[in-house]
Amino acid sequence: MKIKPLADNILIEGVKQEEQTKGGIILPTSSEKDRPEQGKVISVGPGKIDSSGNIIPMEIKEGQIVLFTKYGPNEIKVDGQEFLIAKQDDILAIIEK
Amino acid sequence: MKIKPLADNILIEGVKQEEQTKGGIILPTSSEKDRPEQGKVISVGPGKIDSSGNIIPMEIKEGQIVLFTKYGPNEIKVDGQEFLIAKQDDILAIIEK
Amino acid sequence: MKIKPLADNILIEGVKQEEQTKGGIILPTSSEKDRPEQGKVISVGPGKIDSSGNIIPMEIKEGQIVLFTKYGPNEIKVDGQEFLIAKQDDILAIIEK
Amino acid sequence: MKIKPLADNILIEGVKQEEQTKGGIILPTSSEKDRPEQGKVISVGPGKIDSSGNIIPMEIKEGQIVLFTKYGPNEIKVDGQEFLIAKQDDILAIIEK
Amino acid sequence: MKIKPLADNILIEGVKQEEQTKGGIILPTSSEKDRPEQGKVISVGPGKIDSSGNIIPMEIKEGQIVLFTKYGPNEIKVDGQEFLIAKQDDILAIIEK
Amino acid sequence: MKIKPLADNILIEGVKQEEQTKGGIILPTSSEKDRPEQGKVISVGPGKIDSSGNIIPMEIKEGQIVLFTKYGPNEIKVDGQEFLIAKQDDILAIIEK
Amino acid sequence: MKIKPLADNILIEGVKQEEQTKGGIILPTSSEKDRPEQGKVISVGPGKIDSSGNIIPMEIKEGQIVLFTKYGPNEIKVDGQEFLIAKQDDILAIIEK
Repeated sequence: MKIKPLADNILIEGVKQEEQTKGGIILPTSSEKDRPEQGKVISVGPGKIDSSGNIIPMEIKEGQIVLFTKYGPNEIKVDGQEFLIAKQDDILAIIEK
Repeated sequence: MKIKPLADNILIEGVKQEEQTKGGIILPTSSEKDRPEQGKVISVGPGKIDSSGNIIPMEIKEGQIVLFTKYGPNEIKVDGQEFLIAKQDDILAIIEK
Repeated sequence: MKIKPLADNILIEGVKQEEQTKGGIILPTSSEKDRPEQGKVISVGPGKIDSSGNIIPMEIKEGQIVLFTKYGPNEIKVDGQEFLIAKQDDILAIIEK
Repeated sequence: MKIKPLADNILIEGVKQEEQTKGGIILPTSSEKDRPEQGKVISVGPGKIDSSGNIIPMEIKEGQIVLFTKYGPNEIKVDGQEFLIAKQDDILAIIEK
Repeated sequence: MKIKPLADNILIEGVKQEEQTKGGIILPTSSEKDRPEQGKVISVGPGKIDSSGNIIPMEIKEGQIVLFTKYGPNEIKVDGQEFLIAKQDDILAIIEK
Repeated sequence: MKIKPLADNILIEGVKQEEQTKGGIILPTSSEKDRPEQGKVISVGPGKIDSSGNIIPMEIKEGQIVLFTKYGPNEIKVDGQEFLIAKQDDILAIIEK
Repeated sequence: MKIKPLADNILIEGVKQEEQTKGGIILPTSSEKDRPEQGKVISVGPGKIDSSGNIIPMEIKEGQIVLFTKYGPNEIKVDGQEFLIAKQDDILAIIEK
């Protein structure tokens, strides 16, 4: 099975951040904190079509680690696995490690 | 009887996802979880007309399995059968199996 | 008396759907379910004027059976008779029988 | 005294509809039902100016009976008399008797 | 002291309408009814600048009696005196007496 | 320290109006009444850039006394001192004394 | 690790302002007051692409101290460190010290 994003949609596997105190104790996180704001790009749409009918190429590439707004992307479940689908405009920054 | 979508509307037969625990027990789902976010395309409108009067051709084709935002499409009942009608922009991705 | 829609307005006689169980018993419907989402086109406006001053011709024709969003059209009462007035964009599909 | 509408404003004398049962008994109407959705055009503005500086001529003429959205027009009281002022886009249809 | 409106702003001295019954008794008015929807134009801005950089001349002139939407204009207090500042689009009609 | 506004932003020192009865007694004002709608322009941004890439020059000048909408400007505190930052469109009028 | 902002996004390290009375006593601040409206620019995106496909260069530079609207920027946490990501339009002014 392959999920192919349309237009400027980006398929992301979200990374949930563990809430850790300075002393190293992992606190139970509320569901709101659970919502990821960082993830790995699985696949990228071909790009949005502008008003002249040309495709605007995507800046985001497969495999990049991206930061996004917490409530921007759509949460989608396919065959029991959770994904995020974000528009390119929801991506705020790329993390290079 | 045939339902012919107008403009960039897409007629979809929604697929409701069964909520299943890892151990295989199917839990009763709340009505919100019942709302489909995946479906099979039944028929596709001719495309929206742009500001110059040209038709923007549709990317989605009949028979495709599509992912969409849970609350984007309209729920419509015709002759007792439930359908979804989505705009092409509500379609996030195509699932190829 | 004749009601002549303006611009891209469409005059519709709504069809209320009876809620019927599989066993054939007609259940009393709530007022929300009563709101039609299907109707017969009585008359059609000449079309909206675009930014260059040209009329955009209407795709919907008199006599067609149309599907529309439940809360898109305006409910209007003239001489005791109820009508719906929808914009062409509120029409999702045509039903051919 | 004369009220001269500006731009695409239309001065309307609203017609309140009496709620009458099939048997002919006039029921007390709630204030919401009182709000008119039909009226007689008293005077019409010269038309909105488009982005090129040209006036878009008005389709509505003085004396016409018009249908409009219940909450679109502004209610205005001048010298104790109630009027409605609607934009041309709020007018849905003309009633010819 | 002189208040000079900018762009398409219009400085108005509001006229509060006294609520009077048919028999001539003046009823105490609620503060909402107190809000004026009629006033005298004190001064007029030079006009809004369009997208080509040209000033769109104002139709409203100093001294005119105008009708406006009740909640459109801004209420402003300068040196203890109350004024309204409306955009030209908030002006619905001119009253000629 | 110097605060340099960007684009069409205007740095304003707000003037709070004392609520005074006709007899001269100063009443305690609620915090909402405290919010200024008048102020002195401290500095002015270079102007917004239009869609062709040209700067739209500012009409407001340093030192002017301006009237603005009560809730339009942003309240900003720098080194303990309170300022307002308004867009030029939030400025309704200039007061000349 | 490096965070590279996209389009017109700006990575900012927020500066929280301590609430201090005139007598020098630091008061406990509410979490709303804690939200920074001032910060240091860490890195700047390449700029938004306009409708003709050209990049609009950024005015904000790395290292600048900027003022922004309290609720405009997104709060982002990467590897336990808190950042703000603002659009260039959210930046109201630059502070030169």
